[in-house]
Amino acid sequence: MFMRTIGIMANAGKDAALHVAKAADEYLRARGVAVLLQHHVAEEIGDAGRGLSDSEVTDADAVLVMGGDGTILATSRECASKGTPMLPIHLGRFGFLTEVSPEDLNPALDALLSGNFTVDERMMLRCESLRGADEEDQASAFALNDVVIANGPLSRVLHLRMSVNGKYVTTYAADGIIIATPTGSTAYSLSAGGPLVHPSMQTILVTPICPHTLTARALLVPEDAEITIVVERDPQDMVRVTVDGQVGFPLLAGDEIKVRRSPYPARLLTVGGADFYDKLQSKLRWGERMVY
Amino acid sequence: MFMRTIGIMANAGKDAALHVAKAADEYLRARGVAVLLQHHVAEEIGDAGRGLSDSEVTDADAVLVMGGDGTILATSRECASKGTPMLPIHLGRFGFLTEVSPEDLNPALDALLSGNFTVDERMMLRCESLRGADEEDQASAFALNDVVIANGPLSRVLHLRMSVNGKYVTTYAADGIIIATPTGSTAYSLSAGGPLVHPSMQTILVTPICPHTLTARALLVPEDAEITIVVERDPQDMVRVTVDGQVGFPLLAGDEIKVRRSPYPARLLTVGGADFYDKLQSKLRWGERMVY
Amino acid sequence: MFMRTIGIMANAGKDAALHVAKAADEYLRARGVAVLLQHHVAEEIGDAGRGLSDSEVTDADAVLVMGGDGTILATSRECASKGTPMLPIHLGRFGFLTEVSPEDLNPALDALLSGNFTVDERMMLRCESLRGADEEDQASAFALNDVVIANGPLSRVLHLRMSVNGKYVTTYAADGIIIATPTGSTAYSLSAGGPLVHPSMQTILVTPICPHTLTARALLVPEDAEITIVVERDPQDMVRVTVDGQVGFPLLAGDEIKVRRSPYPARLLTVGGADFYDKLQSKLRWGERMVY
Amino acid sequence: MFMRTIGIMANAGKDAALHVAKAADEYLRARGVAVLLQHHVAEEIGDAGRGLSDSEVTDADAVLVMGGDGTILATSRECASKGTPMLPIHLGRFGFLTEVSPEDLNPALDALLSGNFTVDERMMLRCESLRGADEEDQASAFALNDVVIANGPLSRVLHLRMSVNGKYVTTYAADGIIIATPTGSTAYSLSAGGPLVHPSMQTILVTPICPHTLTARALLVPEDAEITIVVERDPQDMVRVTVDGQVGFPLLAGDEIKVRRSPYPARLLTVGGADFYDKLQSKLRWGERMVY
Repeated sequence: MFMRTIGIMANAGKDAALHVAKAADEYLRARGVAVLLQHHVAEEIGDAGRGLSDSEVTDADAVLVMGGDGTILATSRECASKGTPMLPIHLGRFGFLTEVSPEDLNPALDALLSGNFTVDERMMLRCESLRGADEEDQASAFALNDVVIANGPLSRVLHLRMSVNGKYVTTYAADGIIIATPTGSTAYSLSAGGPLVHPSMQTILVTPICPHTLTARALLVPEDAEITIVVERDPQDMVRVTVDGQVGFPLLAGDEIKVRRSPYPARLLTVGGADFYDKLQSKLRWGERMVY
Repeated sequence: MFMRTIGIMANAGKDAALHVAKAADEYLRARGVAVLLQHHVAEEIGDAGRGLSDSEVTDADAVLVMGGDGTILATSRECASKGTPMLPIHLGRFGFLTEVSPEDLNPALDALLSGNFTVDERMMLRCESLRGADEEDQASAFALNDVVIANGPLSRVLHLRMSVNGKYVTTYAADGIIIATPTGSTAYSLSAGGPLVHPSMQTILVTPICPHTLTARALLVPEDAEITIVVERDPQDMVRVTVDGQVGFPLLAGDEIKVRRSPYPARLLTVGGADFYDKLQSKLRWGERMVY
Repeated sequence: MFMRTIGIMANAGKDAALHVAKAADEYLRARGVAVLLQHHVAEEIGDAGRGLSDSEVTDADAVLVMGGDGTILATSRECASKGTPMLPIHLGRFGFLTEVSPEDLNPALDALLSGNFTVDERMMLRCESLRGADEEDQASAFALNDVVIANGPLSRVLHLRMSVNGKYVTTYAADGIIIATPTGSTAYSLSAGGPLVHPSMQTILVTPICPHTLTARALLVPEDAEITIVVERDPQDMVRVTVDGQVGFPLLAGDEIKVRRSPYPARLLTVGGADFYDKLQSKLRWGERMVY
Repeated sequence: MFMRTIGIMANAGKDAALHVAKAADEYLRARGVAVLLQHHVAEEIGDAGRGLSDSEVTDADAVLVMGGDGTILATSRECASKGTPMLPIHLGRFGFLTEVSPEDLNPALDALLSGNFTVDERMMLRCESLRGADEEDQASAFALNDVVIANGPLSRVLHLRMSVNGKYVTTYAADGIIIATPTGSTAYSLSAGGPLVHPSMQTILVTPICPHTLTARALLVPEDAEITIVVERDPQDMVRVTVDGQVGFPLLAGDEIKVRRSPYPARLLTVGGADFYDKLQSKLRWGERMVY
């Protein structure tokens, strides 16, 4: 993979992101690389004429993503179907997805240009929502972390009927359900009691949120499983599907949510940084002996 | 305690409740007891003129409560400050609070009239919400099960700063928090990973909902503890306090919730039915050897 | 796969197993199949002259295994390196591994002979124990469920240093550690808080037993991972490795245990019985709505 | 409480403990206090003639306990029936029980002599083991943390039949069971999934170790409960009762273990140090926002 054009996506709300974006733009252009900027980035670094749509930026050979884990989640949905690899530059606190810190920007860009990188493919999910007799596809989205079906703040229990590959498995009486990728195992699923799963794996995790039966436990199914969730009872409370904690839509009773592996993985560039086990140590303190 | 007047509270939505209410009314009046009926009960059993307000009904020497656990929770808030004892008659599925099944109604009423009963006092909580500089009491409620502070369906993490008796303990990064009585330990707190607590005990359980730190665990504090929760960051999502899963109000960032033991316990009448350990067996299958 | 010879392995301690073994022997021989019997089975059905060693019996085209999950675990270690498929006939309570009940024996054998079966390959683990400077292989075993390193009854905490593919991950302060296959996810690992994993998957689960840090959680690593555990401190208590809860050996401080995927999967024959999701329902009551 | 005589108990294995013991001895005698030394302490500080038995030392008005949590657990069994208050001086890592660090020794002793202290009463347990037809008391012990019934290293499941106040509750199929005080809630019970309980509370926690049913959960019973555990099946593995992780004895099938609140609480002196909530922060990192 030879990097002729590199896109820059940055969290609009963060000054630091724009500062780093400007530095990367200059560094790359000085080395003969065509740099594609989002409209808001171009504008903020005083070069509005170069602004492009997100779709144009993600046509680059690779994209630098400047922000936190949330920015990468959002960008991964843009890049997924094109297979554009992403190099995350983390701003603010270190996350499970973020890779390069701003002070390491130049060496990281050098590595990128000289081919000293590897590409981690991360499984994504595709979620479809179907409604009514025709069961036509009414909404769909890609997720790098998770698809969450959950109730609203009145805390009524949901009854979520789950089938795998068309076969009935169980009806969760719970606050909701998290359907996660291995990458998502260190996010919301972990809070709900799910296991840690190495991000190179191909599997789908199903973790109930506050199950009202004591027998529920996180379930891992094979990568080719199609999971169907039907919201069973007419809930008086609002039920929503949320993808990667960012985008979502409300559900009605009887709506059917289908989740399966996306044909498009996210492609993350790594240039010699911390691996998954390092991140367990730094983020979850696994390296310490915090004996009580 | 001699039963001269007995009130009847029934779940308005349930035909069975009204049927049993009518039978109890006749049985008690035939034995010289004055029976106080809620307006809707009096109306539905064709004796509208006898209808009384809830406040008048709970002035009786005891109240028969016909419905499920939800009906008892609602009635307990009415009865709490008066100390009126409640005899739950369960309709539908057997709950942790319900005591007498409809087919055992007459022997249960005989037991009540002849003094063959005991009174279980169940600790309740008092929850106050304070806002702004004056910190005037803006809303308050009693809870027999729990006070829940939780976020809405967009699933943003809350930061809940907790103090006990004015001393800072921790800031939960979580979907929410459950502050429960021992009676409430078999309800929502159990779903969130909390322990089972014998309902005769005097303690307050604090259980985080999907904590985003791995170190959180349910915490039990003494009965005289005052728990203060402050919603720390400006949440973009709706945050609510909900009492016994039934009544609630929205919170703003900076709002302060104070929870302490109510001066008024709920008083439940028992006439020889299942005790807590029996209910563990029947409701949670503790009696079975469900070995896998 | 055409079944010319079928072996029979049966739990020596169970009368029922021998009764079913005799019936299967007769049924198969009447259909022209050569039946290979373990010594003790041949003896107990009054045909001692036909008795063979376990190694000879598992040379058959398939082996009927009569007993509980324990009998299958033991037989799987015999069959693994030869790839002999096993048809479990369960006696006593229904297990996760057992497949055919005795009353369905004849139709199951018919299915077997007519080719109406499928072969489920189940990942196994290979465990090696190394000691001292030469690190020569001192003991090794195959596991269908799990490899457990645990302390003795004096309940001193162990310090278990874990590396994956030579890279240090963490040191568990715990009562022990369970390294399990997906098949083993419904056994001891489940008791220790691990997730349920579909048995067709290829992954290794690492679940600490009563971790003395709050941050530990079950970890799933890819199928090609080599896990190394070193017992760190000089334990005053006895530490043991146990394979499938059946065979084991004591460890000394400094001993190194290596666990990786076995090159030989267990091969289980299925003839139309319950699948994994059915077993979740019947064994773990996932089908019921045990709402409290 | 006026301190005329102060005893010193020190962990024999720790040089630091003896060094601090010597310093405390000199400081106290210079202030006119009679100091009672254990034989080994007297010997090691070169004043062997002053050596007394543990029983004589704990006759003092208060005892300084120098060591870690283990030393305090052991001393608490000596002091319990006499009600002697203990001031823990911690050596090595800070524990939940330890109170004063060596560098704060002198101010702590001043506080002690001037009456500037409080006495925390901590509930203890009394454990009796009964065997055979006569059910005579065969062994008994006091516990400040916990009574643990657990199996040996071969990891066979135990069946432990539990009654409370003579009433059958459940039969745990588990690796073992932990019966803990509130003080013990931060020790082994926490590893097994139990809640944190404020040490001033009066309750008994029952927490199964790796339960083989999914429905088990920690259970808290009132302070006046008598818990009876019977080891049900004839275990092929060694089963033991262990008290505070220190002393124990083997059990046979059919043996009955009775646990109830000890009539004697442990009495811990505090001189203005960290309280329970501070210790949650420092030991369990509750104060930090370890958000992932």
